[in-house]
Amino acid sequence: MDELILVGIGTGNPDHLTLQGIAAIRGADLVLIPRKGADKADLADLRREICARVLGAGHQTRIAEFDLPKRDADGDYLAGVADWHDAIAGAWAGTVAAASPAPRRVALLVWGDPSLYDSSLRIAARLSPPPRITVVPGITALQALCAAHRIPLNGIGAPFLVTTGRRLREGGWPKGVDSVAVMLDGTCAFQSLDPAGISIWWGAYLGMDHELTQAGPLAEAAPRILAARAEARARHGWIMDIYLMRRG
Amino acid sequence: MDELILVGIGTGNPDHLTLQGIAAIRGADLVLIPRKGADKADLADLRREICARVLGAGHQTRIAEFDLPKRDADGDYLAGVADWHDAIAGAWAGTVAAASPAPRRVALLVWGDPSLYDSSLRIAARLSPPPRITVVPGITALQALCAAHRIPLNGIGAPFLVTTGRRLREGGWPKGVDSVAVMLDGTCAFQSLDPAGISIWWGAYLGMDHELTQAGPLAEAAPRILAARAEARARHGWIMDIYLMRRG
Ligand SMILES: C[S@@+](CC[C@H](N)C(=O)[O-])C[C@H]1O[C@@H](n2cnc3c(N)ncnc32)[C@H](O)[C@@H]1O
Ligand SMILES: C[S@@+](CC[C@H](N)C(=O)[O-])C[C@H]1O[C@@H](n2cnc3c(N)ncnc32)[C@H](O)[C@@H]1O
Repeated sequence: MDELILVGIGTGNPDHLTLQGIAAIRGADLVLIPRKGADKADLADLRREICARVLGAGHQTRIAEFDLPKRDADGDYLAGVADWHDAIAGAWAGTVAAASPAPRRVALLVWGDPSLYDSSLRIAARLSPPPRITVVPGITALQALCAAHRIPLNGIGAPFLVTTGRRLREGGWPKGVDSVAVMLDGTCAFQSLDPAGISIWWGAYLGMDHELTQAGPLAEAAPRILAARAEARARHGWIMDIYLMRRG
Repeated sequence: MDELILVGIGTGNPDHLTLQGIAAIRGADLVLIPRKGADKADLADLRREICARVLGAGHQTRIAEFDLPKRDADGDYLAGVADWHDAIAGAWAGTVAAASPAPRRVALLVWGDPSLYDSSLRIAARLSPPPRITVVPGITALQALCAAHRIPLNGIGAPFLVTTGRRLREGGWPKGVDSVAVMLDGTCAFQSLDPAGISIWWGAYLGMDHELTQAGPLAEAAPRILAARAEARARHGWIMDIYLMRRG
């Protein structure tokens, strides 16, 4: 493998794909598609759908699926992540090595954008010999959230912070910012804040057919979000959600 | 006008356009293109190029250009911005009113993504009667920067802050974060920081043919960036640049 192309595919709407992403997939010899287990089968399906749409007749690109290794949730968090990344790099390399004829350009379809809370770049750095890495940006969940609500991320000339549910829960409202976006939050960490003066814009399955949104003053919107989230999660078996909060 | 569609077009590479953006332009009756003066003629050219590529034969979409009103830089900053937004809303409304037959769906091509340091949503809120607003997300300068350098925005599970040159200059390194991205910086505000322990990834004209990047420890990279920036700005007559810094 001479080149590994990390292609951001957006967050669930196949029309998030960019012309650059389409060209990258068409120009690849092999596309790698991770399978993340039955509960997230929709996500692998989206990747297959994207490939099917983009690779009409006359494209030589092959597709290879692989089972994403599971992360060992016991023990030290960062050490567990490092082991997991080693295992994923091994799965990529093994899948590429099994393809015949040997592919030179390999594309990996990355959810959203490869630069935002995604490990593909760190995993790619483990490959040996190191291929050339190319990144094709994609629409992020942050942008899908703002688009769905028709809101800006930032106040005029003001900063914004992007953080995780864990950090918000442990550290409270971050210092020095009035706009805070939260990702990777399995526990609705907004519940840990004093809601006075805070507004929230929440979205789940953004870009997908079953997209959900809720918004309002935090005190009043929080119970609505908790109910919508629990119901949707039970129905679909999984959920991905994100929110923006503003103070003042 | 029943509907105003804010279409994020990415940051200079016409291939940043998404399939959703293409469909929005093709489905519009009228596309509004702002002219920002001779020094930024390249930017209007890009919008024209995008329309020409997307609107082949068989599309009824018309294109209307208008001169972007100038902001009065004297007096109170926020009041000046409010007046300017009023004037732009007037220019949009006037351009739409002058089009015959009257367009129902109007698309405005927005640089990057409409949610990131962009005023289109706030200007659109001034239109009367209010049209339906639709937002089509686009690739941002943040993503173009990370893609060009093949780096993540955030540390593993860690927050990041996005801010402006003015805020960085006035407030120093923001509290509680190790990753800081800076936009809208006409004065290289990184010079105001103690560079010890800070790395920087800088990019200008990202996505365009004359894209420039520089990276390294801040102490060593800062003079390179200042020189590259001054030289490029003199050559092109304008510059747009952005950078990410990481500490520790
Ligand atoms: C591992 S991160 C990947 C983010 C991705 N690289 C991006 O650019 O959006 C996963 C988190 O992104 C957010 N997310 C991704 N897709 C989403 C969607 N379609 N709707 C809501 N949130 C989403 C959620 O906060 C989720 O916990
Ligand atoms: C008014 S903001 C608009 C941002 C845009 N909405 C986006 O999503 O990127 C303009 C700032 O974006 C950054 N920027 C936009 N396009 C850029 C490019 N092609 N290269 C470098 N920086 C860019 C610069 O920091 C510039 O000062």
